[in-house]
Amino acid sequence: MPRPFEEALNVLNRALEEMGTLVAHSIHRSVLSLTEKNEDYAHQVLRDEARIDQMEIQIDDLAAGIIAREQPVARDMRFVIAAIKIDTDLERMGDLALNIVERSLSLMRQPNLPMNIDLTKLSSLVETMVLKCLEAFVGRDAQIAREILDADDKIDQLRNDMQRDLIELMKRDTEYVQRALDHMFIARSLERIADHATNIAEDIIFLVQGINVRHQALQTEALSNA
Amino acid sequence: MPRPFEEALNVLNRALEEMGTLVAHSIHRSVLSLTEKNEDYAHQVLRDEARIDQMEIQIDDLAAGIIAREQPVARDMRFVIAAIKIDTDLERMGDLALNIVERSLSLMRQPNLPMNIDLTKLSSLVETMVLKCLEAFVGRDAQIAREILDADDKIDQLRNDMQRDLIELMKRDTEYVQRALDHMFIARSLERIADHATNIAEDIIFLVQGINVRHQALQTEALSNA
Repeated sequence: MPRPFEEALNVLNRALEEMGTLVAHSIHRSVLSLTEKNEDYAHQVLRDEARIDQMEIQIDDLAAGIIAREQPVARDMRFVIAAIKIDTDLERMGDLALNIVERSLSLMRQPNLPMNIDLTKLSSLVETMVLKCLEAFVGRDAQIAREILDADDKIDQLRNDMQRDLIELMKRDTEYVQRALDHMFIARSLERIADHATNIAEDIIFLVQGINVRHQALQTEALSNA
Repeated sequence: MPRPFEEALNVLNRALEEMGTLVAHSIHRSVLSLTEKNEDYAHQVLRDEARIDQMEIQIDDLAAGIIAREQPVARDMRFVIAAIKIDTDLERMGDLALNIVERSLSLMRQPNLPMNIDLTKLSSLVETMVLKCLEAFVGRDAQIAREILDADDKIDQLRNDMQRDLIELMKRDTEYVQRALDHMFIARSLERIADHATNIAEDIIFLVQGINVRHQALQTEALSNA
């Protein structure tokens, strides 16, 4: 039988997974509402936002309850505190999905741009990053966390390619400028969601391995030159 | 004489203010190292990064200690939890200052671009936002938090103006492309620091007034159309 602390951690993990899944769905639906020109997806994201906000508070309370009752120490304490940090990132990802929906609701009423802007690939990559964050946290798995860091480079590249196409369109005809800017805003929101996922992944690697993966090369190099 | 809970909160507040001041200085020095072409500022940012990382853990521990000992409830609990969330944002801002230093160390060895790219104004605005976050949190002051949200629009505009100038330079001569991209990266890092400050400000307004300021207009409008 699990000890009370482990049982409490399991409840916390399940709540984080539920919140993460909800956020990943919102990201998916926010872009799908645009590609399918379907308002239902957009309204679902708007409705789920309230639930995501509630879950942040619920997970904070679960974590605080564990600290108060179980008084965990050292690494156990750091994992419980990490839950409070991760739910903040998830809630902000939910906000960014809402920002996407805002532009999507405006774009879906207008004609498509005369170029295939592949937001689906970008959003699919970002969703996967979010789900892997939860997998890495619950499994305390630094390897999965490192895969998230690798995905971030691919996202930068996809976004740059898309940006180049959109700038090209804006130059071609001023009629396309506003729609191209709306697409850029969506791509930037997806990139910011990926930034949050990267931050979570770095925190998890630090928790699991005690290694700070941020700027290792830079610090070593710069301090040896100092 | 203050009660133990209030005394503990004061210690937590002071630690957050110290961390916030350190982060604001790092942001300042990261840009100053470039504008003054002075490596000493850059190396100071590299050295302070370790202290900022330590302070995140120290504030987490202070907050967890308060939860375990004092078992605060309701609004008091939310403020202690908010400290754990805010120190995460501050630590990430410190990382972004380090990213700026990385580009600055490369740029300072090269000639200036033939156009005045005013990073100082942008970084000064961002520093002020960071310091106001701490002021708003410690004073539980929603008015100051709202000033932070207002500043964010100004930052978007400054960054857009700068981006336009830099694109202009890149078109003029391919020789400028890499240096212009490095400047864009620095502007984007400053903008990401401002994003963190905005997130903190929104959290503080929610804590103080119980109002979720994110997307109010959008939600009201979209749900009434649903």
